[in-house]
Amino acid sequence: MIKNYLLTPGPTPIPPRVLETMARPIIHHRTPEFQKVIQEVEEDLKYVYQTKNEVLIFAASGTGAMEGAIANIFSPGDKALVVRGGKFGERFGDICKAYGIEFTALDVEWGKAVDPKNIEEALKKNKKIKAVFTTLCETSTGVSTDVEAIAKIMKNYEAVLVVDAISGLAAIPIKTDEWGIDVVISGSQKGLMIPPGLAFVSVSPKAWQAIEKSTLPKYYFDFKAYKKALGKTDTPFTPAVNLMIALREALKIIKEEGLEVIFEKHKKMAAAVRNAVKSMGLELFAPDAYSDGVTAVRVPQGIDGEKLVKTMRDKYGVGIAGGQDEMKGKMFRIATMGYITPPDLIVCIATLETALSEMGYKFQLGSGVKALVEALK
Amino acid sequence: MIKNYLLTPGPTPIPPRVLETMARPIIHHRTPEFQKVIQEVEEDLKYVYQTKNEVLIFAASGTGAMEGAIANIFSPGDKALVVRGGKFGERFGDICKAYGIEFTALDVEWGKAVDPKNIEEALKKNKKIKAVFTTLCETSTGVSTDVEAIAKIMKNYEAVLVVDAISGLAAIPIKTDEWGIDVVISGSQKGLMIPPGLAFVSVSPKAWQAIEKSTLPKYYFDFKAYKKALGKTDTPFTPAVNLMIALREALKIIKEEGLEVIFEKHKKMAAAVRNAVKSMGLELFAPDAYSDGVTAVRVPQGIDGEKLVKTMRDKYGVGIAGGQDEMKGKMFRIATMGYITPPDLIVCIATLETALSEMGYKFQLGSGVKALVEALK
Repeated sequence: MIKNYLLTPGPTPIPPRVLETMARPIIHHRTPEFQKVIQEVEEDLKYVYQTKNEVLIFAASGTGAMEGAIANIFSPGDKALVVRGGKFGERFGDICKAYGIEFTALDVEWGKAVDPKNIEEALKKNKKIKAVFTTLCETSTGVSTDVEAIAKIMKNYEAVLVVDAISGLAAIPIKTDEWGIDVVISGSQKGLMIPPGLAFVSVSPKAWQAIEKSTLPKYYFDFKAYKKALGKTDTPFTPAVNLMIALREALKIIKEEGLEVIFEKHKKMAAAVRNAVKSMGLELFAPDAYSDGVTAVRVPQGIDGEKLVKTMRDKYGVGIAGGQDEMKGKMFRIATMGYITPPDLIVCIATLETALSEMGYKFQLGSGVKALVEALK
Repeated sequence: MIKNYLLTPGPTPIPPRVLETMARPIIHHRTPEFQKVIQEVEEDLKYVYQTKNEVLIFAASGTGAMEGAIANIFSPGDKALVVRGGKFGERFGDICKAYGIEFTALDVEWGKAVDPKNIEEALKKNKKIKAVFTTLCETSTGVSTDVEAIAKIMKNYEAVLVVDAISGLAAIPIKTDEWGIDVVISGSQKGLMIPPGLAFVSVSPKAWQAIEKSTLPKYYFDFKAYKKALGKTDTPFTPAVNLMIALREALKIIKEEGLEVIFEKHKKMAAAVRNAVKSMGLELFAPDAYSDGVTAVRVPQGIDGEKLVKTMRDKYGVGIAGGQDEMKGKMFRIATMGYITPPDLIVCIATLETALSEMGYKFQLGSGVKALVEALK
């Protein structure tokens, strides 16, 4: 018998209160009962997004909403600026390519954050840039971007700022209205603590202006159709009913706890993880630009990173994530968001110590857990 | 206290065995455990689809897969033929419009089925038609299309046949390979007995040829990306994990019961509903082209159809569907698919009798239930 602990940066574990709601008999979506769900979810999403903008809800993974942002903002001939410092930044570029939208890539070394000044430079150089795409918390590298500084710069430009906050929302601070971010994309399976299958997009009045003029083809992700339906507390297409009901419950939990409390908790937990791995002699992948939602750690020399992740999962039941793409086998990632708690982290670090030790990595056994627990005090 | 009975043509009720699987702790999707889910679901979907073709799985509502079919088959300048005999046939036309694909509309009176000969005529007239779009069971009218006959005709043409079987699959017969249907679209919340949020598409080798040449923009619904990932028992984007696990369980139930048994059961149930409403002096909306998945009935003169549906739902807990678009208030629809059983139908018809009687419709009380029960024997 094995007991499972999930500490991956999505899907994250789901509170039993939320899981339970998904096992209830289904209701029809064109009913007052479901309209109440839409209403409550919309209101609470605005709280989490810290916005007065509409938050559109899609039955899709986060990538669907990323595509939606591109298909709804641009017209043929428009230009984009894409910050690429990881797998998900790159995805924005890939979607632009698929839609024939020319883009300037602002390539940032994996593990580093973009310098907001470089965005200003690019905007100055190319007046035709209609939108800038960046990632709040780049899941693939554990890097956090200074979105606030970028938004400040962009107030002086016509371009729309689009932020992928899929693994950032409800995990680390993002103040949509106060900072002035036009489009904030998110997904259900990270800080929001429900299974994957829902994606969200908040849209500012400035972004709606761009959307009004956009002529790229779209249908399922047509933002205007969702806005119109939302005005009637409805959805243009069949919503993912059970996930919406789960979301309602998860948002209730978030509101009960309070966003600020959650952010502080994640901050403390991530700091504790960083302390723990450093005490074990391990190296952070993003020592300066780390995110408090997920910590990326370099696999030490001589250790097989893929085997490490597998051992922890299959032998000990502890799910962490490995590296993706160019970092495959060279990195592991531990999430500190949503329904991941300090006791989960203790299990995770103790298991990491055990597995690394078995694999021949030399360090002082117990040093990680000790540093973790001290930082969690 | 009210007890609820759901007899809408999607979402349909969900078996407790399936609901229970959704309340289990979530697992990560890039694991051998989830690969097993993909494998089993794929195999069992092929059984339900009666095909050897790949069945692609999307985290989306059915409309997403409809858009996918269009974005993946066509290139600018291509022509389509769209059978429009209801809300969902019309949707294919709307998506073609969104993508700038010119189409010939084969408009069929609501409540009637398309004459396959008219499709042949259109194909003869316009050699540039690259794909024909039709609906197996048109949810909005309760009409069943003779897809087998259409497929037979189309064997002599280069055009690809795309069938929307969203409310048809696992509800009424469709033999993808034997009949030779290139693209079959479906969704999770009808015959497949799980909540909305998953969409499916089977793709024939002939359709893959068209897809290879297509240049319309696509990313989230890029069929080739899903095919490639499926080859590695993976998904290109984060799958809707809990819905996939629910689907595995629902497909097990379908296999245990057997497709042929299910089709016979639905056939008998739909015939019983038709008998019941006719015995009450009501008129079928599609007397000749009825589907065995959903029965559409005209609201009698002088009765407010919207009020009828509301009364049944709010006063008696029985969910049936009203009419959509031009048939709003003039039609109601009772589903006979998935986890809807004869006792549900008895409750439904008895409630229908009660509500209609209260609203002043004159008929012999008890006649509907009597006819229903006799036909169910």
